[in-house]
Amino acid sequence: MTRSAHYIGDRTLVVENTEPVPAGAGQVRIDVAFTGICGTDLHIMHGAMDHRVHVPAVIGHEMSGRIAEIGPGVGDHAVGDPVTVMPLDWCGECPACRVGHTHICHRLNFIGIDSTGSMQRSWTVPARILVPLPEDLPLDHAALIEPTAVAVHDVRRSRLAAGEHAVVIGAGPVGLLIATVALTTGATVTVLELDPHRRTVATRLGLTVLDPTAVDVAAYVREQTGDGGADVVFEVSGSAAAVRTATDLLSVRGRLVVVAIHPTPREVDLHRVFWRELEMIGVRVYQREDYHEAVRLVHGGQVPAAQLISRVVPLDDVAQAFSALEAGGDVKVLIDCGGDA
Amino acid sequence: MTRSAHYIGDRTLVVENTEPVPAGAGQVRIDVAFTGICGTDLHIMHGAMDHRVHVPAVIGHEMSGRIAEIGPGVGDHAVGDPVTVMPLDWCGECPACRVGHTHICHRLNFIGIDSTGSMQRSWTVPARILVPLPEDLPLDHAALIEPTAVAVHDVRRSRLAAGEHAVVIGAGPVGLLIATVALTTGATVTVLELDPHRRTVATRLGLTVLDPTAVDVAAYVREQTGDGGADVVFEVSGSAAAVRTATDLLSVRGRLVVVAIHPTPREVDLHRVFWRELEMIGVRVYQREDYHEAVRLVHGGQVPAAQLISRVVPLDDVAQAFSALEAGGDVKVLIDCGGDA
Repeated sequence: MTRSAHYIGDRTLVVENTEPVPAGAGQVRIDVAFTGICGTDLHIMHGAMDHRVHVPAVIGHEMSGRIAEIGPGVGDHAVGDPVTVMPLDWCGECPACRVGHTHICHRLNFIGIDSTGSMQRSWTVPARILVPLPEDLPLDHAALIEPTAVAVHDVRRSRLAAGEHAVVIGAGPVGLLIATVALTTGATVTVLELDPHRRTVATRLGLTVLDPTAVDVAAYVREQTGDGGADVVFEVSGSAAAVRTATDLLSVRGRLVVVAIHPTPREVDLHRVFWRELEMIGVRVYQREDYHEAVRLVHGGQVPAAQLISRVVPLDDVAQAFSALEAGGDVKVLIDCGGDA
Repeated sequence: MTRSAHYIGDRTLVVENTEPVPAGAGQVRIDVAFTGICGTDLHIMHGAMDHRVHVPAVIGHEMSGRIAEIGPGVGDHAVGDPVTVMPLDWCGECPACRVGHTHICHRLNFIGIDSTGSMQRSWTVPARILVPLPEDLPLDHAALIEPTAVAVHDVRRSRLAAGEHAVVIGAGPVGLLIATVALTTGATVTVLELDPHRRTVATRLGLTVLDPTAVDVAAYVREQTGDGGADVVFEVSGSAAAVRTATDLLSVRGRLVVVAIHPTPREVDLHRVFWRELEMIGVRVYQREDYHEAVRLVHGGQVPAAQLISRVVPLDDVAQAFSALEAGGDVKVLIDCGGDA
């Protein structure tokens, strides 16, 4: 017997005993140690993704654990190995896959949204999605590798380089991770955040953070850059106003990275895009190389996992974990799925 | 004595006798053969740029001619040499210039808009803006090098490659040149144009052109690309609807090149930018390397200059040339400035 959290619709999660799924051909069964709650998981709980999620659904994709069982035909792994997963499954045949953009497959199966996820004690997955972990990396820290890989992907696509100036709009978990990863490039990083608590968290992490309602951010960035402007702006807030701020702040040939999900079209100052030869770059999930770098950064401590994990809740109290996150004040909430015993 | 066309405001151009300006240190005086009329020149005539243009102003910057006089300190040039100009003068000190983006200088002097242009028989300019021409290139064709350099710059920034599919929205002179230059990369090119006459012109040039009100363009592009979508869309129409069309047509990792000037912010589907990892790329004027390629393409006939020049009008009839262009039906109208005698 094992335990699983099921989303059953109507903002409700129930935790039940279930039978572990044996590892079939090409699969492994993982004893899940920790599963982080992502913004997408919150959206699912709010019913915003009921068109994609088939209830009852086990959600969750930011995880760590150890291999408990190995199915036929799986090499390169052993029972007891610490792992996380890159939760993407692609068709291999669509136009995006054919040119190597498998992470944006037209028929992408995002494991933990479109299919069964990791908010359970025992999880069976295709071995091809495994990412091996260093033996000495604490498994609670390892649950932050997936969101770190998002940040690594976003920073890599931005082409941010040492000596450049980046602005991150929005200091939620993804914004904080992007700012942290951006600093490792040798760039200067300024974070903009409206919420005082989030500003405090960012400051504690050693980030430079401004309240855009209190500071003339454009003047600040001009002063910091010899009148040039920001080389990169990461838009992680999802607000219409931030899009305008972004184009205003950017230097000639500056890059605006669209990280946040904007549910409706936004007004963009295309005259400024033309006048300064700006670029806008869409970013979505990650690729294998981003995971390798994310493991390196979490393992090396450049991403301060311990400081980012604000709460760990047992699997049976998963509903409480979601409530805590909704109430604000937390950065990263992990569910202890019991597999690190 | 020489002749010059002066814009004096109130939609009025007057042609007058003027004294030629002797070539000073670092300057050359050019006998101007031809000056093409650009969309920007039309905007100036309509008063839309009176904040930048100091009347009375000699406008014009798409030109060809021969060197008539060489000032002190000018090497590498001889009287009689055929030339065009790259009409940009930059400060060399601003943040954009400091990192080599001189063509987007914060204090750019666009010669022919911000300072005296080539709609005159005799024109004195800094020698550093000269672009030498092959002796056997007809000077009327050479007047198309400046707009061709715009197209070369736009295609270069798009990273369009052989085997890709490009869509050009808008078949005015710049759109036609972009489509023509895009074809030289080995890409497939589809042009979208609302105006029947412009569609006829594009068809005569051998381009594939569709009426987006009559054809399901998205379905057409999907069919042409094995369901992938366009790799590059050049937005050359300036319309809000075209921006939406552009993001709808693009493939995963597709690039939207913002060529047209959009006077007001436009709604952009940022969800699609995120979902397909789209890029938007602003483009403005050109750089030296674009001119070298433009000379090569006009000289080699890949840009069909003779077919694009629809009318040549003597300098004294310059007002008539503008009226003809406004009436529609023309592609490129040249003013014969008399320097090719």
